[in-house]
Amino acid sequence: MVVAYDGTDFSGFQIQAQGERTVQGSIERALHEITGETIRIEAASRTDAGVHARGQVISFDLATPIPVERVPAAMNGALPPDVVAKEASVVSPDFNPRFRAKKKLYRYWIYTGRIRPPFHRNYTVHYTKDLDLELMREAARYMVGRKDFAAFHCAGREVENTVRHVLKVDCGQGGKLVQISVVADGFLYKMVRTMVGTLTEVGRGRMKPREVGNIIESKDRTLAGPTAEPQGLFLVKIWFEDLKGKS
Amino acid sequence: MVVAYDGTDFSGFQIQAQGERTVQGSIERALHEITGETIRIEAASRTDAGVHARGQVISFDLATPIPVERVPAAMNGALPPDVVAKEASVVSPDFNPRFRAKKKLYRYWIYTGRIRPPFHRNYTVHYTKDLDLELMREAARYMVGRKDFAAFHCAGREVENTVRHVLKVDCGQGGKLVQISVVADGFLYKMVRTMVGTLTEVGRGRMKPREVGNIIESKDRTLAGPTAEPQGLFLVKIWFEDLKGKS
Repeated sequence: MVVAYDGTDFSGFQIQAQGERTVQGSIERALHEITGETIRIEAASRTDAGVHARGQVISFDLATPIPVERVPAAMNGALPPDVVAKEASVVSPDFNPRFRAKKKLYRYWIYTGRIRPPFHRNYTVHYTKDLDLELMREAARYMVGRKDFAAFHCAGREVENTVRHVLKVDCGQGGKLVQISVVADGFLYKMVRTMVGTLTEVGRGRMKPREVGNIIESKDRTLAGPTAEPQGLFLVKIWFEDLKGKS
Repeated sequence: MVVAYDGTDFSGFQIQAQGERTVQGSIERALHEITGETIRIEAASRTDAGVHARGQVISFDLATPIPVERVPAAMNGALPPDVVAKEASVVSPDFNPRFRAKKKLYRYWIYTGRIRPPFHRNYTVHYTKDLDLELMREAARYMVGRKDFAAFHCAGREVENTVRHVLKVDCGQGGKLVQISVVADGFLYKMVRTMVGTLTEVGRGRMKPREVGNIIESKDRTLAGPTAEPQGLFLVKIWFEDLKGKS
């Protein structure tokens, strides 16, 4: 199932200690409401508190015989207003979106304007000064390729291997909004936000584009830019191999 | 001063019984914080709970000697994230934005899509079916002119005169978003939302465009469409005569 959510009022995707409102908790509660079943979902990406999704992908087993094309509408009647089920399809029983994603697109939004934006406040980070997009694009080129991204890996989650293949880093601007889009075969913990924090250091003239290459080679997190705030980040799209199953 | 605010988390503009969060209360508290003065503000429009503003205009007397061009930045340091001061200028001491507005532009946003939109939920009303913009434009023509709009006046606020001059009603569409823009020399209580509710009845095929002319002539509120929900409405711009003063 493809789901979208506004991460503003959630303590992240993953179920946590009781009392915390999570996306997973809201979806599992809705599934229980429409089926009576206790269902545990798997997600392609465990987004952090404040991070949004336009195309998160989850999977679950459903015993109740609801035709798959009716599941999104049934879910939307039970989900809170900040989560929506967009589409559903049947996959093979062993499909797990966390391990079968081929690549993912994340997009980060920055509002550049003298005055802070009341309507974009939960969906952008605000910089009062302009960013130099040309310098950012030059720096972004050092981030593309199959590399060890240990310098962009934040402590907090263990991983065995910090090599990832970044396929694309695009920087665009429309009016006061700047967007940075990143496609990769996988992401380390807070990797996009650290890439964004590093690119904005370049865009503000505090770091030279070629330093980004050195930072990646150093594998030293302390040399990269700060981790950009969560509310500018959107999980936009996930591509899979073998999405469709037989069952 | 021109201010913008996200109306979602406010019980409307005007100060109410204690415990209610209002835009006026937030602005007066910020003024007190930066000046130590107890200042009462006047607003051009007392927007309802959930209604937003991109260009609300307020006025107040300030004893503290702050250069006028520095007032917005000082205010923005003290205002909550959902209210922002955009610009300020000196006006004559007798200027009251409520009585000196020449015309106002309100814009209403409708999201037409099968699935409810998680990111637009506080800034649009959601209709699952398409609206016929051509029929709505035909109906809108009956609303333009100097007329008695008693049929679009909701109970709750007393007025002596229900005649208003509507200068423009525009209906536009971009993707799944439909917008209705209304410019008038003044508005009755919930007038824009009742105009929108009536136009969407036409857009959905439940009412014929020419019936709108009959409804206005009837001066009967019960014949008009329902009052559209507040969260789709934005106060966009206000024009004044004599905005600049000498003092």
